Amino acid sequence: MNSVLGTFLAILFAISSAAGRPTNEVKSIHEQTVKDTSKEIAAYSNIAMDIINLAVNGNAQNRSYNRLAEFVDSIGNRISGSGNLDQAIKYMYSALKENGLENVHLEPVKVPHWVRGQESAVMLEPRNHTIAILGLGSSVGTPPEGITAEVLVVQSFDELHQRAQEAKGKIVVFNEQFVSYGETVKYREFGASEAAKVGAVASLIRSVTPFSINSPHTGQQDYQADVVKIPAACITIEDAEMMARMARRNIRIVLHLMMGAQTYPDALSYNTVAEIVGSQFPKQVVLVSGHLDSWDVGQGAMDDGGGAFISFEALSLIKDLGLRPKRTLRLVLWTGEEQGGVGASQYFALHKVNISDFDLVMESDIGTFTPLGIGFTGSSEARKIMEQVMSLLESINATNLFQKGEGTDINFWIQAGVPGASLLTESSKYFWFHHSEGDTMSVQDPIQMNLCSAVWAVVAYVVADLQEMLPR
Amino acid sequence: MNSVLGTFLAILFAISSAAGRPTNEVKSIHEQTVKDTSKEIAAYSNIAMDIINLAVNGNAQNRSYNRLAEFVDSIGNRISGSGNLDQAIKYMYSALKENGLENVHLEPVKVPHWVRGQESAVMLEPRNHTIAILGLGSSVGTPPEGITAEVLVVQSFDELHQRAQEAKGKIVVFNEQFVSYGETVKYREFGASEAAKVGAVASLIRSVTPFSINSPHTGQQDYQADVVKIPAACITIEDAEMMARMARRNIRIVLHLMMGAQTYPDALSYNTVAEIVGSQFPKQVVLVSGHLDSWDVGQGAMDDGGGAFISFEALSLIKDLGLRPKRTLRLVLWTGEEQGGVGASQYFALHKVNISDFDLVMESDIGTFTPLGIGFTGSSEARKIMEQVMSLLESINATNLFQKGEGTDINFWIQAGVPGASLLTESSKYFWFHHSEGDTMSVQDPIQMNLCSAVWAVVAYVVADLQEMLPR
Repeated sequence: MNSVLGTFLAILFAISSAAGRPTNEVKSIHEQTVKDTSKEIAAYSNIAMDIINLAVNGNAQNRSYNRLAEFVDSIGNRISGSGNLDQAIKYMYSALKENGLENVHLEPVKVPHWVRGQESAVMLEPRNHTIAILGLGSSVGTPPEGITAEVLVVQSFDELHQRAQEAKGKIVVFNEQFVSYGETVKYREFGASEAAKVGAVASLIRSVTPFSINSPHTGQQDYQADVVKIPAACITIEDAEMMARMARRNIRIVLHLMMGAQTYPDALSYNTVAEIVGSQFPKQVVLVSGHLDSWDVGQGAMDDGGGAFISFEALSLIKDLGLRPKRTLRLVLWTGEEQGGVGASQYFALHKVNISDFDLVMESDIGTFTPLGIGFTGSSEARKIMEQVMSLLESINATNLFQKGEGTDINFWIQAGVPGASLLTESSKYFWFHHSEGDTMSVQDPIQMNLCSAVWAVVAYVVADLQEMLPR
Repeated sequence: MNSVLGTFLAILFAISSAAGRPTNEVKSIHEQTVKDTSKEIAAYSNIAMDIINLAVNGNAQNRSYNRLAEFVDSIGNRISGSGNLDQAIKYMYSALKENGLENVHLEPVKVPHWVRGQESAVMLEPRNHTIAILGLGSSVGTPPEGITAEVLVVQSFDELHQRAQEAKGKIVVFNEQFVSYGETVKYREFGASEAAKVGAVASLIRSVTPFSINSPHTGQQDYQADVVKIPAACITIEDAEMMARMARRNIRIVLHLMMGAQTYPDALSYNTVAEIVGSQFPKQVVLVSGHLDSWDVGQGAMDDGGGAFISFEALSLIKDLGLRPKRTLRLVLWTGEEQGGVGASQYFALHKVNISDFDLVMESDIGTFTPLGIGFTGSSEARKIMEQVMSLLESINATNLFQKGEGTDINFWIQAGVPGASLLTESSKYFWFHHSEGDTMSVQDPIQMNLCSAVWAVVAYVVADLQEMLPR
């Protein structure tokens, strides 16, 4: 419990006692809290409608989509350490300035600098066939002449361990089934080191996606310390399934794998920040965020262009309406998210000294499709307040308050006790495009982005303008 | 009306008259026809159940899927004129022989021999970006150094004609919306010649598909006579939409296009034929078919591996049950379908002399997903009979008789008056994979193929075994 909440509850307790309420004080205090904020929050219904109208029907209609389209069409994808990412940060710095947001600045951080290089995979036996691959982030390359080796196909880590004797000198192909991203991504993260431990010379994982049109999906992989680093790439569902069928027929499979991947020293990059400074408690912050970096495929329009641009839009909408909440609204466009929240980690290290001033941390990084509501992590008192905030979104049918707010970039704060919110949308196809050449503007929809922007702006504004910070 | 039907109706007329029926003979004859075949067809219910059981639950369960998987995994895709197609034909000849089918033989035809060669497209302005392309079948290549030119984006032929003055020396990008395959494919077929007429140097069409993960979809294109031949390729929805957005922003787009496509003299190929010879009318034929060739991408597992292998399976099922219909069941695995029914056209030219012996021509070439029934073209009398045949498929819920039976390879016969049937399945995603690298075994489902095989076998067997040929 933080000191602000303590004061709040003490006052309520006094009111409650003065009114001669029954003795179950804790319960009555909670009821009173909810009732009081309920009235306070209900008073925002007109402002919420103004925000929604501006985003959905007004001058700002389709603005987040159009801004995002110009941005990704101009710059393309933006992997950590790349010139494109530098360009993207400069672009956004100018755009935020031009939009008249306050305290626009860049906060330097160091990010990984991995470059894919040329890469290819060809099946040599049982027949010649080009295999679509994408090297995984942080993978080493092959020798310049590539690696030619027989394939061992396994369906799981368990099967790999059972067949450890067969793996030596082979390229291990993981044909794991997609269960969920959270469950299945371990093959992308740890496949190479697990394969290396049993003597494999390279690791190819079936892309972590439930659906494919022969599309490989990259992503970060992590070498275990003290395990030899072998090249790691993803292949398509189609090729993984084909090699699994061949293996079941006891057909010998030989591949030639060539990867020019290289890791350079960490590069200088920046978290991009802009604010609407609070009118009463300028040091207290509601943080609204998405990440600016992406993988080096597609346009990074969905992951996380959408999240970054509806976050930008949230501040723009509030500014356009001439609103200034009591607390500061801080937009942060993270860098180096894809390598494990690298920019956000350094941001937390720098700013955690002020953690008691962080009211709510918000992140949009799992799609900006039709919004359903938000996921929220916080105390039960805070949850009750957030439920009331979400009720302001009834006209656009996005009132859900789901169990868990989370995100690579805000988890640092959430784990340290700050309430956290993540945007949840109708994202059933999210992983069809995720980290693939298919992550482009064609995935995004202007109307859906209008709605997401409205949700994001209403939540951010109202929380930032309440009399009290959210109770921890 | 053919002579067999004439005899049939004459007999019915005599019966009808003898029974002192009212004077509206035509109507009563029809009713009688339907009633008589109804009883005859109902008698096949046990045989239909045997076929369905064998295909769905019995020893033949998943056989068509497994055979297809081995075939496409061994050989890969099979474009007209290629060594792969030659190999595929030899493979099937052996497979049909091994299965004990009769009169297994190859009928030589001449097919186009177009080779894609190396190809690439790169955006040079406004930024460097690799554009995924697939040259269209029959396209000429570029000069070896490629073509570098500015882009004109249009949404339709109308817009192209309105902006004809702007097209000279440009690469025309058609960003046409997908309406339906039948409606939209004209851009693939005729885009290059339309663009050439207004002075364009190359034509890029948005792939003819409703959905994409940055996937180009090739297919045949047709140069108009007396129009200069310019290189023609498809690009993805994503890149077409991006260039359209750039053009709307008045941004100059420059591409470098390189295509090594070449057309060689027509090649020798074969329609692959096998039969179960009829017990009573061996010269009369029910033709069951799919095509063996494919495009030179993916595995050609869906288009038309599925159709070819459920057709093969239909004969296998009938043979396994020791059944021999009165008329001959003839399996034809066409060659050169993708270039416009080239093998089927020559087959028709050779065999049309026997057209009166062709009872029904069947083709499966729009997917082998969950079967809904068949499309049928034929006289209303024949349609009534086919409705009864379809009722035998009630247990697998595939009794629909849709309006139109059609298919590139059977249309020659249908247009000449032979009844035609095409397999219709739940194919809503068919064009997501069609002519793309995504046309692989991963699209196919063994249970769905079991059901399709059952439908195909029941229809083929019962029609081939009826007392009379279908009335024309």
